[in-house]
Amino acid sequence: MMETLQELRQFFDSGYKEYRPDITIDCAIFGYHDGKLQLLLVKNKILTLWCMPGGYVKKSETLHEASARITLERTGIGNLFLKQFKTFGDPGRNQAYGVFDPEKLYEISGIRIPEDSWLLSQTVSVGFYAITDIFKATPKADILSSECRWFPIDEIPHLGFDHDDMVREALFTMRMHLHHFPVGKNLLPRKFTLRDIKQLYEVMSGKSLHATNFPNKLIKIGLIDRLEEKKRIGAHRSPTYYRFNDEIYEKALKEGLVVV
Amino acid sequence: MMETLQELRQFFDSGYKEYRPDITIDCAIFGYHDGKLQLLLVKNKILTLWCMPGGYVKKSETLHEASARITLERTGIGNLFLKQFKTFGDPGRNQAYGVFDPEKLYEISGIRIPEDSWLLSQTVSVGFYAITDIFKATPKADILSSECRWFPIDEIPHLGFDHDDMVREALFTMRMHLHHFPVGKNLLPRKFTLRDIKQLYEVMSGKSLHATNFPNKLIKIGLIDRLEEKKRIGAHRSPTYYRFNDEIYEKALKEGLVVV
Repeated sequence: MMETLQELRQFFDSGYKEYRPDITIDCAIFGYHDGKLQLLLVKNKILTLWCMPGGYVKKSETLHEASARITLERTGIGNLFLKQFKTFGDPGRNQAYGVFDPEKLYEISGIRIPEDSWLLSQTVSVGFYAITDIFKATPKADILSSECRWFPIDEIPHLGFDHDDMVREALFTMRMHLHHFPVGKNLLPRKFTLRDIKQLYEVMSGKSLHATNFPNKLIKIGLIDRLEEKKRIGAHRSPTYYRFNDEIYEKALKEGLVVV
Repeated sequence: MMETLQELRQFFDSGYKEYRPDITIDCAIFGYHDGKLQLLLVKNKILTLWCMPGGYVKKSETLHEASARITLERTGIGNLFLKQFKTFGDPGRNQAYGVFDPEKLYEISGIRIPEDSWLLSQTVSVGFYAITDIFKATPKADILSSECRWFPIDEIPHLGFDHDDMVREALFTMRMHLHHFPVGKNLLPRKFTLRDIKQLYEVMSGKSLHATNFPNKLIKIGLIDRLEEKKRIGAHRSPTYYRFNDEIYEKALKEGLVVV
């Protein structure tokens, strides 16, 4: 992530030595906290539109490593849950909803790029999504973006490039994966009530879940274990605490599991 | 798909004008018939290993169009159900399990390619899977493959390039998608019994399904409709015929649906 004009100039001049000119990564970074699902967006100075954060892939990196680097730079959090959702490479996608306009670039940075610049190649973008706790993340803009902040999932503005499509696909895939991979380990406190985990899954999936069938399923497959401790809310309300079973959770992350 | 040496020579010489040198498509073509799941493979003459069929993407094509062209060429069937499963672009993937060896190419074709040939660029491969009825397909080898045929899913040999990984990912994603997208329209006869559709889903998913809960779910979500007609097997066995509900099937293909 470039933060100074000097870094930007160097990247434009000779970035093709370190980065592959033909592949980019775009990241749908979903944030959850306390019953709210949000998406991290950056305001692109050239397009003056909000976009998903993204970047080029280094020649030495795997696609997954590139997505981990990009999400770390934007959120300050390493080791996020990251999954590919779809790859976008149709002709003209770079021109779809906003062009990488060299004139606009000159206006905001004073940098002129040549007509045969490596930055003007057609790219394939591999979409990854991540899920994080909003309160653990520190959103960070770079030299080419004026802002970086969270948007509630139902208040996403019209995005630049083909990112409207991307967000729709990311949300669809994340929600499909909810049935097959566990979530919650970095989103809920270490001990939580059945109400907490039901709320998390409802917000992530955008659907109502059955008050007893859903948590019973999680208990039955061994994903969560009942603790002896109860939460003290009032005289007649003292729900039992649960926690994730680490072994089953990690196995399910790797191999998949029918969760919901 | 190239079938003659002349076509091959032309492709090697000037294919970069029509095709993007940096992206390929690889297709996991699953075939079903009568309770058996198989995978279509081609024997690569250069590697002398079996591989998934694949090819370059034309500059004028979308990724989906490219995958439809490649699967049509290999099977003779257009309009297949095609979905991306994952994109592969890690450094060194082209060298992983078998190299595009120019010497071996010369040996089998008499063609020498220059050291700076566009064919030696690092590629990102977008994986698509397809599902077809084995009996409707006509497998076809090309000039660079000695054979093209079906393999039972539990008898897949060690594959060239990074295709072992690809097949594992394709199978995982196809099986995950079984929960969210309907299958069967081109795999079962127009009218079928609950036993037929249960067998199809069991073979595709590799799992046993409940004899009544599973078909009841399909009926409940409206994916299949009961017909008045019964199949005549014997005096005490006359199962009712069902058929897919076209409207719900098409909607579910587009929007997803929790099927199993």
